Amino acid sequence: MSQSESESQITVVLPDGTELAVDADASVEDVAYEIGPGLGRDTVAGKVDGDLVAKEAPVHDGAEIEIVTDGSDEYRRVLRHSAAHVLAQAVLREYPDAKLAIGPPTDEGFYYDFDDVDLDEGDLAGIVEEMEAIVESDYDIEREEVSVAEAEERLADQPYKLELLEDLAENDETVTFYSQGEFEDLCAGPHVASTGEVEAFDLREIAAAYWRGDEDNEMLTRVYGTAFEKESKLEAFLERKAEAERRDHRKIGRDMNLFSIQEVTGPGLPLYHPPGKTVLRELSAFIEDLNLDAGYEYVETPHVFKTDLWKQSGHYDNYEDDMFLFHVGDDEYGLKPMNCPGHAAIFQDHSWSYRELPVRYAEDGKVYRKEQRGELSGLSRVWSFTIDDGHLFVRPDQIEQEVEQIMDAIDVVLETFELDYEVALATRPEKSMGSDEIWERAESILERVLSEHEDEYVIEEGDGAFYGPKIDFAFEDALGRKWDGPTVQLDFNMPERFDLSYVGEDNEEHRPVVIHRGIYGSYERFFMVLIEHFEGKFPFWLAPEQVRVLPISDDNLEYAYEVAEQFDEFRVEVSTRDATLERKIRQAHDDRVPYQIIVGDDEEADGNISVRDRKERQEYDVERDAFLAHLQAENGEKRLNPDFLAD
Amino acid sequence: MSQSESESQITVVLPDGTELAVDADASVEDVAYEIGPGLGRDTVAGKVDGDLVAKEAPVHDGAEIEIVTDGSDEYRRVLRHSAAHVLAQAVLREYPDAKLAIGPPTDEGFYYDFDDVDLDEGDLAGIVEEMEAIVESDYDIEREEVSVAEAEERLADQPYKLELLEDLAENDETVTFYSQGEFEDLCAGPHVASTGEVEAFDLREIAAAYWRGDEDNEMLTRVYGTAFEKESKLEAFLERKAEAERRDHRKIGRDMNLFSIQEVTGPGLPLYHPPGKTVLRELSAFIEDLNLDAGYEYVETPHVFKTDLWKQSGHYDNYEDDMFLFHVGDDEYGLKPMNCPGHAAIFQDHSWSYRELPVRYAEDGKVYRKEQRGELSGLSRVWSFTIDDGHLFVRPDQIEQEVEQIMDAIDVVLETFELDYEVALATRPEKSMGSDEIWERAESILERVLSEHEDEYVIEEGDGAFYGPKIDFAFEDALGRKWDGPTVQLDFNMPERFDLSYVGEDNEEHRPVVIHRGIYGSYERFFMVLIEHFEGKFPFWLAPEQVRVLPISDDNLEYAYEVAEQFDEFRVEVSTRDATLERKIRQAHDDRVPYQIIVGDDEEADGNISVRDRKERQEYDVERDAFLAHLQAENGEKRLNPDFLAD
Repeated sequence: MSQSESESQITVVLPDGTELAVDADASVEDVAYEIGPGLGRDTVAGKVDGDLVAKEAPVHDGAEIEIVTDGSDEYRRVLRHSAAHVLAQAVLREYPDAKLAIGPPTDEGFYYDFDDVDLDEGDLAGIVEEMEAIVESDYDIEREEVSVAEAEERLADQPYKLELLEDLAENDETVTFYSQGEFEDLCAGPHVASTGEVEAFDLREIAAAYWRGDEDNEMLTRVYGTAFEKESKLEAFLERKAEAERRDHRKIGRDMNLFSIQEVTGPGLPLYHPPGKTVLRELSAFIEDLNLDAGYEYVETPHVFKTDLWKQSGHYDNYEDDMFLFHVGDDEYGLKPMNCPGHAAIFQDHSWSYRELPVRYAEDGKVYRKEQRGELSGLSRVWSFTIDDGHLFVRPDQIEQEVEQIMDAIDVVLETFELDYEVALATRPEKSMGSDEIWERAESILERVLSEHEDEYVIEEGDGAFYGPKIDFAFEDALGRKWDGPTVQLDFNMPERFDLSYVGEDNEEHRPVVIHRGIYGSYERFFMVLIEHFEGKFPFWLAPEQVRVLPISDDNLEYAYEVAEQFDEFRVEVSTRDATLERKIRQAHDDRVPYQIIVGDDEEADGNISVRDRKERQEYDVERDAFLAHLQAENGEKRLNPDFLAD
Repeated sequence: MSQSESESQITVVLPDGTELAVDADASVEDVAYEIGPGLGRDTVAGKVDGDLVAKEAPVHDGAEIEIVTDGSDEYRRVLRHSAAHVLAQAVLREYPDAKLAIGPPTDEGFYYDFDDVDLDEGDLAGIVEEMEAIVESDYDIEREEVSVAEAEERLADQPYKLELLEDLAENDETVTFYSQGEFEDLCAGPHVASTGEVEAFDLREIAAAYWRGDEDNEMLTRVYGTAFEKESKLEAFLERKAEAERRDHRKIGRDMNLFSIQEVTGPGLPLYHPPGKTVLRELSAFIEDLNLDAGYEYVETPHVFKTDLWKQSGHYDNYEDDMFLFHVGDDEYGLKPMNCPGHAAIFQDHSWSYRELPVRYAEDGKVYRKEQRGELSGLSRVWSFTIDDGHLFVRPDQIEQEVEQIMDAIDVVLETFELDYEVALATRPEKSMGSDEIWERAESILERVLSEHEDEYVIEEGDGAFYGPKIDFAFEDALGRKWDGPTVQLDFNMPERFDLSYVGEDNEEHRPVVIHRGIYGSYERFFMVLIEHFEGKFPFWLAPEQVRVLPISDDNLEYAYEVAEQFDEFRVEVSTRDATLERKIRQAHDDRVPYQIIVGDDEEADGNISVRDRKERQEYDVERDAFLAHLQAENGEKRLNPDFLAD
């Protein structure tokens, strides 16, 4: 390489690792054209060393370059950023006194914060109309480098922008502006080529936000919107949003009287009302059956412990800020953030022979963790939640059979709910404890069990806990969202910390291995996912009210009670409302009762019933015994998609 | 009455209300002789206006006088006080440097505190021997009034007595001494006539105690003993004591691995081990069956609440000191000391029609109350305990049917455990809330239900809560001790405090009445009583391990497992210990397993079993099906005294 070449040329690295020589003053766009003229034309922005930049941004020697075109996630961020500008332009046209704060893209769209403007949801339509006009005008969006002094002049009317400018001026002598038509904004970019690209957008809501997120600052008006590269994608997104709102567990929780979280009782502390508690009891009984079959024994530990225990377990160091702590005399106590140390204390209170292992403790243990109040949300983020906790104290030679058995139980649960899921094996991290031998052995056991149980799983190298490798399940709900699911964790640390031991066949003391396992994990979160997944239409075995008997008239009330009694192994109610049959049917439907039994004079004369399900399928002249037998099977098998009534 | 008569005579009142004229300088003993010479001779002490005094004590005009003779409880106190003196006399003979502190009678005997003496349990026999010699000598016990100045001289060697004398000298110019042989003690008395009466005594243990109970003072050596008026009564008492120790739930709890309370996890916070949790689960399931049959619905409330709730309920004012409190930010939170306000918050979250009442909430709710550490004891006094809580929200016209139904459930439980009990109706106290009409109505309802349910009950006038009348059960255990049992309380206050309402048939808002009811009350206490009542030999349905199969030799192991499988609806174990049959039987007996199934070659050949019970009754050649059928009945009927094996 000649001296002149090395001065006028630099080398950049493309995503596939190949190197490309370009002019020393090349922009991202120039790099794209260098790769090919088609790519050059499609370029809307770029990434330099991982940072999103305008296509006009310069590259430097050795930079890792990615080209952003209009089919990518990065393009969507750029588009949404431009949509925010379109919003700001429209607001300024309608409300010329508005002051602009910031307007970034987000994961779900974009927003812009304004001051000196009084907006409510009713004003959004007018702004949308103005935005449509701006899109229609298809203004070129142009980038301009400007000196700080000139920027100050241009932003004389925009105090928030001036504040931003001050910060920028500390490091840079020039800043960039983007303009479209009469509108310009201090902005690092990048943006799409013209406002015409912002075709598929929508404004969603208005909220309040503090300038720079600091509650000591001015309260601004934030307008939320979203934008997509195609109308069809926007529609799909809006549909998904509406679907999520329809399924919102807080709304359904109120409708179905499942639970409440009240100001007077405290945030993040759910109260379960009878219908909600019924679902939780069924969920718990399901795990209990599996547990008892698998030889688990139930224990019970308090919710308060002296913090000495948490110091011994090591949780105090990591969990102190999340624990609710208080003093009694000189001693510090805390609400338990997890159940394991209590179970270890029970195991430790007894001396064990190798013949008595494995010991399997189970507890639906309610734990308390002090999340930030602002992060609490319905049942998904709470202060108190109950874990279907299990801790096994096993000999090293028993790990395989026990993990095997846990996986069987997990399979039963995931299959019962027909949940799609992914499984990962997280292996030894760099910082970890325990001998190479036991880690290798443990990981190969987990792999062997996984390969027998699962069609596919991923290995997350180095992602295990420092105390042992683990298997993590993530399942997917009807909205396509992924949730942390069952977990199986080996633990070589707790036995050390609590000096747990058993006497082996050799009459020597040995350390057991602890296995932590949760299937639902948190009842609260699993319940929340089920509510949203089923839109409150729980499978028969979980439904708070399983059958409602609707007498067509008061004359059929006695027969209705007779029928209800025959079905009283289930949660059955008789509708005594003074209403038309149609209204009773509607009400039962709204209440999401799986089956309605309708009884009128005809049914009474035959001793039969009519049956109607949540899909509004109805069958007349059904024999009671036949339906009872069906329900027993549907309940016993915990069926999700019963086939009693044909479509 | 002449002037001279009124001067030389005074009038005293006897327990039956009659008045008696006696000389103005008469003693208690003189009064007794006035009543009759026989009573005069039997008099050991007296009560003047309710205060126990020596028989030599003077009476005054209008005094209410009771004569204490040697058959009474008061006599026993006097006797024990004298026994304490015999103890002190014996200690001084054996340890002349000992300093005497105080030596009073107690409910179960007496003690004396000493300083400057080094005693352990091994020294008690020698002291007892010396005491026996003092009793044998039958010294007269004589009372003497002494000036403070002379008392000071006599007590020159006894610093603790001098301190007591100082206090007395503030009010009195003379004090009394009691003497027997060479021993004398500053003492208000009264005492028995001679040391010969202290015939039936025993020393029990040595403990440490602070002078005047203040831990800043000297630590003294306390010797505990007891005394009775007859040897037979002493023996009965010692037997009862030994029985209570044998039945001590803390000891049995360790033996049977039922629970632990550990220093590292915290005082008063029991951890339930699998066998203990099994019993609790069965107890809970029993109440659950009764609850579900009676139309209760389960709810779940957290253990932490904002204290706003407790201010609303009024508990904060009364319970603040007993609550575990802490702050999160500016808000105060506390662990719940009771479940009712949580249930009221759930009821309040919904609007109710008269047609939906009664609403019955049930929860096994764990509550937390901060007892003094020194008062904590096993499961009988704890920081955390679980109530089988029920709260009913009823219309006034539903009180009767609901109380009726609760009483039915209480009957079932008390009959199942065959517990003797007493019932009391506690009626309106002076300070109370609610109209006369509702109190009268409520009390008459409770009386009517009680008179239908119970052969006898007492009315405790004015003993109700301020918020409503209540029915309290107290049951008696095998040791003859009485325990608080089931309770049914009407509450007119909580509905006001929480502004609870339902819409009546008249379309107006009405206040429901709340009924609190607990059957076990606290699981912890009930469990403790059951452990001691049954000496750990729980009825079959409650036993942690119900059946143990003992193979006579390893050859019968396979058959043992086959039998175990047939019985696996119960909690059955196979003994795999490498031990003789005799040792296996002994172990199963020690483990309090209700039934042993013994299988050897003979049983295997016939396909039968041998059955042995906890009373060591054994039957050979039993058909398996027949025994299974028996167990199913014994379990299903929760029988206490099964009749499968004849005595």
